[in-house]
Amino acid sequence: MHATDVIAKKRDGGELSREEIEFFVRGYTEDRIPDYQAAAWLMALFVRGMSDQETRDLTMAMARSGDTLDLSDLARETENGRQLLVVDKHSTGGVGDKVSLVLAPLVAACGVPVAKMTGRGLGFTGGTIDKLESIPGYRTDLSIDAFKAQVERIGVVLTGQTADLAPADRKLYALRDVTATVESIPLIVGSIMSKKLAAGADAMVLDVKVGRGAFMKSMEDAEALAHGLVRLGEEEGREVVALLSDMNQPLGHAVGNAIEVREAIETLRGEGPRDLREHVLTVAAEIVQLSRRCEDIESALTLVLDKLTSGAAWEKFRELVEAQGGDVETVEEPDRLPQADLVEDVPVPRSGYIEGIHAAQVGLAVVDLGGGREKKGQPIDHSVGLMIHHKVGDLVQKGAPLFTVYASDEGKMEAARERVLAAHTFSDEPVEPLPLFYGRITG
Amino acid sequence: MHATDVIAKKRDGGELSREEIEFFVRGYTEDRIPDYQAAAWLMALFVRGMSDQETRDLTMAMARSGDTLDLSDLARETENGRQLLVVDKHSTGGVGDKVSLVLAPLVAACGVPVAKMTGRGLGFTGGTIDKLESIPGYRTDLSIDAFKAQVERIGVVLTGQTADLAPADRKLYALRDVTATVESIPLIVGSIMSKKLAAGADAMVLDVKVGRGAFMKSMEDAEALAHGLVRLGEEEGREVVALLSDMNQPLGHAVGNAIEVREAIETLRGEGPRDLREHVLTVAAEIVQLSRRCEDIESALTLVLDKLTSGAAWEKFRELVEAQGGDVETVEEPDRLPQADLVEDVPVPRSGYIEGIHAAQVGLAVVDLGGGREKKGQPIDHSVGLMIHHKVGDLVQKGAPLFTVYASDEGKMEAARERVLAAHTFSDEPVEPLPLFYGRITG
Repeated sequence: MHATDVIAKKRDGGELSREEIEFFVRGYTEDRIPDYQAAAWLMALFVRGMSDQETRDLTMAMARSGDTLDLSDLARETENGRQLLVVDKHSTGGVGDKVSLVLAPLVAACGVPVAKMTGRGLGFTGGTIDKLESIPGYRTDLSIDAFKAQVERIGVVLTGQTADLAPADRKLYALRDVTATVESIPLIVGSIMSKKLAAGADAMVLDVKVGRGAFMKSMEDAEALAHGLVRLGEEEGREVVALLSDMNQPLGHAVGNAIEVREAIETLRGEGPRDLREHVLTVAAEIVQLSRRCEDIESALTLVLDKLTSGAAWEKFRELVEAQGGDVETVEEPDRLPQADLVEDVPVPRSGYIEGIHAAQVGLAVVDLGGGREKKGQPIDHSVGLMIHHKVGDLVQKGAPLFTVYASDEGKMEAARERVLAAHTFSDEPVEPLPLFYGRITG
Repeated sequence: MHATDVIAKKRDGGELSREEIEFFVRGYTEDRIPDYQAAAWLMALFVRGMSDQETRDLTMAMARSGDTLDLSDLARETENGRQLLVVDKHSTGGVGDKVSLVLAPLVAACGVPVAKMTGRGLGFTGGTIDKLESIPGYRTDLSIDAFKAQVERIGVVLTGQTADLAPADRKLYALRDVTATVESIPLIVGSIMSKKLAAGADAMVLDVKVGRGAFMKSMEDAEALAHGLVRLGEEEGREVVALLSDMNQPLGHAVGNAIEVREAIETLRGEGPRDLREHVLTVAAEIVQLSRRCEDIESALTLVLDKLTSGAAWEKFRELVEAQGGDVETVEEPDRLPQADLVEDVPVPRSGYIEGIHAAQVGLAVVDLGGGREKKGQPIDHSVGLMIHHKVGDLVQKGAPLFTVYASDEGKMEAARERVLAAHTFSDEPVEPLPLFYGRITG
């Protein structure tokens, strides 16, 4: 088989066989096929599109390109003797998305094992691992054995991707990033699902963000992605639920790293913003039901609400931090978390209704502050960030605090202030608040 | 400007501006844009297509990427005081295409200056430079000064491409070759015309081959290419005539290097195959008329016929060989040209009419013999080759010689024999001979 023949077939709109796709993915991962041939192939796939079968073959070829975890021995039995499923959760990435920090201990407090490897932030989106590293001592590089042992012991683990999961996806994604071939639904489906399938969960809840602070800007694209993810998961024998959630404005108020950990702690303690709390409860109930811990979504909601309000989820979070070497005193007294020296409240420039808060611009303002990264591997400053005090639809008065900036120097403060101010738009007419979720897609 | 933005624009079907195209071509030629980005861009150009304006901008960006020749001082005045144009000729490449060897001295004998840089063979197509190097001593690496001086002195030069013409095209073509992005009409137009425009001619005759031994397999593609070439040339102020010529069967009988030189010499001496002679006369008359040497095509035909039959063209060829250091005795006694030791006549396997002679297969048989190259830079054996004794439509008798193989060893002889035999097909019914030309396209 020749790489150019496979490229030419797709270029002319043909459908590739499983063998052709495996040949290309393996050849590229093992450095036999050069970057320039893979780039031409990716562009042909992007422009000509991919059938469901091609998408599935690409996903499986990438999923099998490295380690694959088997988490089946982690699944416990419930009181009524049923086997629980191991459920994974994935968010397509957003601004202020600290959901996993609250969700993981909450689901674990419900008796459902949580074995989650998670990632770092890039561009306008933050990453759970970066946020967790705001907690002094918290280890994010557990070995596979330590990872499994911790789930056995306390029912929850939240660490970086230590196994070599789907290296083909990693290599192809890096190439897509520099060849304008990222925004293809089948390629995104393949990228997400190859990692999730390699990570070994039986079931998964996928939080597909849509809006100005998400990769999917339109509902049409988000729905297509959600359907693609669900279809592919089901075909591979996994139970999958996709939720379409809003990412036009940031989730919660805090955007940054330590500042988001603080908001997550407040939420676990029964305080925290209403939207974040509701979002977490909805996703948690989906996971709990999907795991077979509860018979239906209503009893699942009752259970997760109880575990949040009773303090069980907060207790589980303390256990998690302690198990991974983090300083428990810091999470008990969040004032100890790193906080930048310069703090400035920026006032509302005109009275009116908040019409929009451009989430991607808010995320980029955090990158400007040093709290995010433009390229992989860059270090970040955990102490900087933003508090966005209002939500779309709020009626605000000129001069009241609109947002607060936490910065390390005046220049960065200035840049963030301008960008976040410009991200807010106002209206004289009442504006409808944004919904949290737009839909739920399942097989 | 960012390379990924230019790629994304074309990916989504947009039309690129001149600035965007120049940015990309210059960036790639100067190694600022890497191969993988250029590969993605080429695939997007291939699949989405290019407007006439984009094709022109790409062509000019490549034409200006290196040296550009000015041949205007070579144009002489005719007896009636009119300024002659410098006319170039280009063939899209075929099998047995020794046209330039006869054409250059013939046109020069008509008083029209011929300043031609020409290329080497690759794959199934031969190259004029390789053929000329069969003549002991013939130099194909003249400097620009020597090149011009020779035209001034004897009116004709036929050498390799010594100036650094269109290096952007060279680099992009090498990448297209390994990324399945060769067969795009606008990209082919750009590749041909960028070199021709950089080479400085005022007018050009383009021999667009069509058929099984050409890059353009269908008449539709060949016509599209011819129209694209003519349109672009006219827009750049050049007079262009494109001829669509047959390349289903080889041109003439000889296919190889020394063996083609011998056939060219025979043609210059008034012998040689009818099809080659007619083809050369037709192209020569186009050039002579385009140069303004003659008023119309009829007087041009009269002139070129006279110069061929009078021996003036043959005399000019001897002058050319001598001027470039070649051994004149060898061309006067072509038996001195290199000829392989093993010679075998292969008989007609069955009586009947010749239905087809697959030109590309014949060309590849010469590559098998060592007379052509699979990759750039490979050395070739000038002494090997084939004589294809018949033409499509000929009635042949079983046992008579069908073709002759000149080989350096038995294994290669065997491989060539099988391939060329399989390239011939026979019919019990009479078969129409193939035309030499299918059409003439001009602005």
